[in-house]
Amino acid sequence: MKIEPKTLKGFRDFLPDQMKKRQYVIDKLRAVFESYGFEPLETPALEYEEILTGKYGEEGDKLMYRFEDLGGRKVAMRYDQTVPLARVVSQYKNEITFPFKRYQIQPVWRADNTQRGRFREFYQCDIDIVGSSSQKADAEILTCVSSCIKILGFDKFKILVNDRQNFKDYDPKAIAIVDKLKKIGEEKVKEELKNSGFDENLLQEVIQKSKTQNLSEIVEMSVSQDQSLEEKIIYEPTLARGLDYYTGLIIEVEIEGFDAGSVGGGGRYDNLIGIFSNEAIPAVGFAFGFDRLIEAMDGLNLFPQNLTKTQILVTVFSDDLKEVSANFSTFIRNKGVNSELYLNSDAKIDKQIKYADKKGVPFVAIIGPDESSKNMVTIKNLKSRDQQTVQYDDAASAIQTKTT
Amino acid sequence: MKIEPKTLKGFRDFLPDQMKKRQYVIDKLRAVFESYGFEPLETPALEYEEILTGKYGEEGDKLMYRFEDLGGRKVAMRYDQTVPLARVVSQYKNEITFPFKRYQIQPVWRADNTQRGRFREFYQCDIDIVGSSSQKADAEILTCVSSCIKILGFDKFKILVNDRQNFKDYDPKAIAIVDKLKKIGEEKVKEELKNSGFDENLLQEVIQKSKTQNLSEIVEMSVSQDQSLEEKIIYEPTLARGLDYYTGLIIEVEIEGFDAGSVGGGGRYDNLIGIFSNEAIPAVGFAFGFDRLIEAMDGLNLFPQNLTKTQILVTVFSDDLKEVSANFSTFIRNKGVNSELYLNSDAKIDKQIKYADKKGVPFVAIIGPDESSKNMVTIKNLKSRDQQTVQYDDAASAIQTKTT
Repeated sequence: MKIEPKTLKGFRDFLPDQMKKRQYVIDKLRAVFESYGFEPLETPALEYEEILTGKYGEEGDKLMYRFEDLGGRKVAMRYDQTVPLARVVSQYKNEITFPFKRYQIQPVWRADNTQRGRFREFYQCDIDIVGSSSQKADAEILTCVSSCIKILGFDKFKILVNDRQNFKDYDPKAIAIVDKLKKIGEEKVKEELKNSGFDENLLQEVIQKSKTQNLSEIVEMSVSQDQSLEEKIIYEPTLARGLDYYTGLIIEVEIEGFDAGSVGGGGRYDNLIGIFSNEAIPAVGFAFGFDRLIEAMDGLNLFPQNLTKTQILVTVFSDDLKEVSANFSTFIRNKGVNSELYLNSDAKIDKQIKYADKKGVPFVAIIGPDESSKNMVTIKNLKSRDQQTVQYDDAASAIQTKTT
Repeated sequence: MKIEPKTLKGFRDFLPDQMKKRQYVIDKLRAVFESYGFEPLETPALEYEEILTGKYGEEGDKLMYRFEDLGGRKVAMRYDQTVPLARVVSQYKNEITFPFKRYQIQPVWRADNTQRGRFREFYQCDIDIVGSSSQKADAEILTCVSSCIKILGFDKFKILVNDRQNFKDYDPKAIAIVDKLKKIGEEKVKEELKNSGFDENLLQEVIQKSKTQNLSEIVEMSVSQDQSLEEKIIYEPTLARGLDYYTGLIIEVEIEGFDAGSVGGGGRYDNLIGIFSNEAIPAVGFAFGFDRLIEAMDGLNLFPQNLTKTQILVTVFSDDLKEVSANFSTFIRNKGVNSELYLNSDAKIDKQIKYADKKGVPFVAIIGPDESSKNMVTIKNLKSRDQQTVQYDDAASAIQTKTT
């Protein structure tokens, strides 16, 4: 029986071209996270169901991948990285050094409606500081996020901020409506407020609220670390982001020229991390929407032209010269050049060059009878079509000077 | 209701100390893979059940995590990375450049008996060359695997090899018994052969088999690339490794001084990759047992002493000096030093130094009123306990020269 090779709806294969972009972003983000002292954490794909259920509201329980394992245990697949963090903090309290600054980059699974352009398997990319209620921690999240966005090449972006304390005297349902201001506009917000039994003037009231002192201090601290934040950080009094979760600072990052939504969000949440140990454990963090980041970078052309790590394809001229080519490939790899030997024996040089071109390899090496008799190699630049015949010892530098 | 924070049997959290080791190994392996022209691939955690079932024998179907999703689809969790590779090769035949050299490093899930020291979630780390039947491909797998093992610091290792063609005239059941030679010894193998109705002399016959010409040529090619392989590659005529899968070269890597089993295995399998398109697609590959590699490196003390990426903790002397410290942390980070600012406001310097010590951060910076008034900073080496007070501009080099 022939089985059709296909993937589940909402799930994706990442072929090398896509993977190289993803790794580029992950490597950059990791480097920034680590430059701020964040350290890596990973948690399992499967958790006891009771660890996850009830933590993400009704919607979460509905979209969670859940099943019974072979041992009759009710299990659920990772739905985000924050609840597992809360579990880890309780479970290893005595092993962890606080403040605990961790980053986590793993896939999560949600059986969401894929028609909304959402995936059922996607990476989250989180930083969190657990165990510090200091405003320095809030400010550090802001500056670290800004460093990340900048290192990826985005020039024009906005970090929208608000303080959840601004909403403490309002009905959360009203605020959920106000939060839609950007999406649906002022008129519709007012209408919805009225239809839900609230005063439509509530919108103006919220819009006119001034920054809390807490928020002013956090923003000031961030700006003193990175002057550019003066204009990047924008106070947005209607920003709410899932009210029941956050307790102070709220953040959302928008990229100019990318309209598909924010590329990440976060804030302070002092009541969640302690749920498994019934303690109050303060925390502040941020999650990048990894797919959105990549989409935005693609749209703004921010990826380097060539992400192929292979620097040279060593062609094989003929079967009796295959060992010479293999030796050169090893020789140049030992000099620190990423070198691929063409593996199929029957291919003409033209076909081998096409292979290099398709893979984005910038140089090819050719060792024919001529070169071989003189212990030399011809290095061809596939972009400029220049070529030169050099001694083995000069090949690495020929490539490196030409690449830059 | 209090929910106990715990992980499922066979599943693990990786806290920073463990994660840093894992990332160290992954980064090294990726670098070697890429130096040979292998490119990254990722496939989904969930597949249609029919893609996976029947591909790993009865045992596989039994240990696979399977369930029905919310849309009534029968799905299964990734069980290895080879069957998904086969699916990908069929599904994207026209987008992939052949020979397709890919690496893949993702978790897989098997509901195995954890009492045998096995985990239910573990990483696999695979390289495969798809679409080449050339012996050069076989030889490249051998040299690449050897480069990986060496870069991790292992000096003494054996690459056991055999050719599955050596067994073509034997009953697979008999060979499965012969394969146990190392585990159970000669006497037990003979006994089992007899009890299963085979001639006990079959063992001697297999042991005396000489290398196939194919295997000789592959080994010779590898040795010509890396002379050290002359003594590392060892012909093992009883090595079988799951007969039904491999069609030519078989490989298994053993580390001297690590007796918990091989750290990886692989070989040529020309009949598997084409299953979804009913074609013959040749392939050769290798999978590292990631947990075993780490265990072996731990046992032989091969990890660098300090894997902490943070180079300096900038302490905060007092609340009125917090901005000075924050500024210095940013200043030195912008010079390329991974710098963490101590975030909690109330801690004494001693406590902050202890925090750095616990996290393995090698230096701390202290800016008290004295230093602050002179725009200087005291850099303390936590290992040697040396300290010096320097200008900001000299701080980065003070750390870097002292670290090396």
